[in-house]
Amino acid sequence: MKVCKFGGTSVASAEQIKKVANIVTSDSLRKIIVVSAPGKRFSDDTKVTDLLIHLAETALRGNDTEIELQEVVNRYRLIAEGLGLNEEIVQVIEKDLRERLAGDENDPILFMDCLKASGEDNNAKLIATYFVHVGLPARYVCPKEAGLLVNQRPERVRALPEGDERLSELRHEPGIIVFPGFFGYTEDGTLRTFNRGGSDITGSILAAATGAELYENFTDVDSVFAANPTIVENPIAITKMTYREMRELAYAGFSVFHDEALMPAFRRSVPVCIKNTNNPDAPGTQIVKERDHSDQPVIGIAADSGFSTLFVDKYLMNQEIGFGRRLLQLFEEEEIPFEHTPSGIDNLSVIIRSEYLTDEKEARIIRRVKDELKADNVHLHSNYSMIVLVGEGMRHTTGLAARAATAIARSGASIQMINQGSSEVSLVFGVLKEDEIKILKELYEEFFQKSTIAL
Amino acid sequence: MKVCKFGGTSVASAEQIKKVANIVTSDSLRKIIVVSAPGKRFSDDTKVTDLLIHLAETALRGNDTEIELQEVVNRYRLIAEGLGLNEEIVQVIEKDLRERLAGDENDPILFMDCLKASGEDNNAKLIATYFVHVGLPARYVCPKEAGLLVNQRPERVRALPEGDERLSELRHEPGIIVFPGFFGYTEDGTLRTFNRGGSDITGSILAAATGAELYENFTDVDSVFAANPTIVENPIAITKMTYREMRELAYAGFSVFHDEALMPAFRRSVPVCIKNTNNPDAPGTQIVKERDHSDQPVIGIAADSGFSTLFVDKYLMNQEIGFGRRLLQLFEEEEIPFEHTPSGIDNLSVIIRSEYLTDEKEARIIRRVKDELKADNVHLHSNYSMIVLVGEGMRHTTGLAARAATAIARSGASIQMINQGSSEVSLVFGVLKEDEIKILKELYEEFFQKSTIAL
Repeated sequence: MKVCKFGGTSVASAEQIKKVANIVTSDSLRKIIVVSAPGKRFSDDTKVTDLLIHLAETALRGNDTEIELQEVVNRYRLIAEGLGLNEEIVQVIEKDLRERLAGDENDPILFMDCLKASGEDNNAKLIATYFVHVGLPARYVCPKEAGLLVNQRPERVRALPEGDERLSELRHEPGIIVFPGFFGYTEDGTLRTFNRGGSDITGSILAAATGAELYENFTDVDSVFAANPTIVENPIAITKMTYREMRELAYAGFSVFHDEALMPAFRRSVPVCIKNTNNPDAPGTQIVKERDHSDQPVIGIAADSGFSTLFVDKYLMNQEIGFGRRLLQLFEEEEIPFEHTPSGIDNLSVIIRSEYLTDEKEARIIRRVKDELKADNVHLHSNYSMIVLVGEGMRHTTGLAARAATAIARSGASIQMINQGSSEVSLVFGVLKEDEIKILKELYEEFFQKSTIAL
Repeated sequence: MKVCKFGGTSVASAEQIKKVANIVTSDSLRKIIVVSAPGKRFSDDTKVTDLLIHLAETALRGNDTEIELQEVVNRYRLIAEGLGLNEEIVQVIEKDLRERLAGDENDPILFMDCLKASGEDNNAKLIATYFVHVGLPARYVCPKEAGLLVNQRPERVRALPEGDERLSELRHEPGIIVFPGFFGYTEDGTLRTFNRGGSDITGSILAAATGAELYENFTDVDSVFAANPTIVENPIAITKMTYREMRELAYAGFSVFHDEALMPAFRRSVPVCIKNTNNPDAPGTQIVKERDHSDQPVIGIAADSGFSTLFVDKYLMNQEIGFGRRLLQLFEEEEIPFEHTPSGIDNLSVIIRSEYLTDEKEARIIRRVKDELKADNVHLHSNYSMIVLVGEGMRHTTGLAARAATAIARSGASIQMINQGSSEVSLVFGVLKEDEIKILKELYEEFFQKSTIAL
């Protein structure tokens, strides 16, 4: 049994949903179908989720919502008509939206969650209707009915393992299940949405809970590439990688699959396959527990910009037990997570994502480090990028750091930071943002072009 | 005006002290002479400081001390006789020792400090007597009289800046001053000794306080070498390096000059010169504020063993603000300073000096990290060595990390950790202890042999 998730572009139009039906029909193991809200049909299009956010905001401001409501309904109507369905399903959707709009506005976050989630929920109803229309034994299943439990606010939303037992029964239900992604319910029945990548999370939770043989994640690319295709020309496709590799790549800027979404599948060892709705015969990228990494220690190179470094210098810092801890505590009090902390004898740097900084926070941190930690020198630099080499077995490949550092030197760039030693599957270089692209190209050349030539 | 410090081997015998007198005579700028206790005369010899520790321990155990006392007195007698001095100075020393032994034993640490400090103190008296004997206008000056102030217990001993003004007057005293190294006095007149390298510290404090033009540190080697001469055959001598370079090298295993001792001189920009009492015409190694580093980015390679790594792994650690801080807090509570903290997405390692660990502490740390921080995996590895490349301008030399990593790869060893990014003058590689020697040799070859050939 397989769980298949179809992303926004895969369910954006009647034409796309027909492809989905063909994909489901072509393999009888495809049983649980998780769907997103209709995404963009062309690059300037507006996703239904964004229409819904606009609709909810209009309602929360107390303005008339009829125009915004009809805009959403019309997107579904267009799809329904394209699929040859009658007006009935559109009326179901319109009624549902009106009910949501009539809901409690006193808690704007929950009101917004409820409106946003309708994008997936109504699309699931529509797609189930279409599946039945073309003769598939399908039915829509609501996450509440199925038992997709999430934790209470104000904690960051995540699925509770207590829901897994009920969810596992989906495996034994007859026919095909169409399940909306992106949201679940708390024990007291409150709807909460996952973060971005939420439909990926739903699919992963269901695949894990039902013990699926495979979790197929359908998107609009043939596979995950070894480097960003907008920077490196025709990068090679990754045919197989491990969960850890995917997680490191996703964290460091690969947007194909959200790292958090991987975890439920990973924990139950359900293999994942990323496939293209528009080219389902392509093998895609498999994500598995282990792979043979003897001939390819590096599987991908990610780059992410927007990092800042706080440099702190204090005479005899190394004899002062607790200095590093107090510095990190200060960042904690400012609610800034840190990424790396390279250290010297009398100095320590903390590398963070710049998005967490405001001018005010920046000034306060520098002042506090000087005043409270009695540092001699404190300064903050922005515009750093992190380049991450990812690959199982990297650690045990002698000379890999040397090859990477040599490639960076060849590009003419300086290395600002190296972090190696904890993760077994990644090697991180901090560089100036202005050098990011040339380094990425040179590293790709070193680890992928050369080995291709050698084959 | 110069401050000259003579280490233990430089003042271990009459023959050596004659060399010291010649050195002082040969340069009229050599005004303040800081001396150690008599050190080893041959490799199996016992230093006077060690005889004194044994003497103090015997007294503290309540045993008769006459034999131990005479052993110390005889060392000075032998020196005095060799210098052609009469018995008078020996009697002064014996009387002084008996007074110290009659001191308060209720505080064993202060009693021990007082006995240990007599090594330097009595040697200074003896050497001053000899200087006068050969016609030099010299006198012994006691640190109490001069105002070498240190902080109160239980804090780690260090000189107080409040003493500097009185110490600066030494510059204007007539003649040559012979000053014992290793100890100072608190405001209430209690004697406290510095840590190891204590005479270096005294010299540095006096050089800084008097605004000396040069602080000459006489020892038994011609210079500081670019690598450990017991590992690398005939390493090149370092003729000039900066304070920061010396501090990094001293910290990472270079034992020529204690890093803490450098600081007073550094803060007042007094240049330091390390010279050989047995070959005073050799230029020695100069330690200065700045140097031209264009043709030699790396000045030295140090290696130090005895490190351990605690590896901690926890799913979604990177989203948990405060995890790193709490891990470091735990080490702080165990009174263990950390050296490096390489990090991955879901893991963090803390590298510490193994000397701080006991079996009990190790077990407790692992248990606490599992219980209190809810880590998924925790394990501790020992037998790591740190290899440190030191040099001003290293950071701005493109390709330096690449050269180093390539040399390590050539040695066949794996790199366990790289820490680069905070210190501007060092690059640290964590390696397995068993690989330390071959890596050091290969790095020396890369950064020193090749450039020699190129000249």
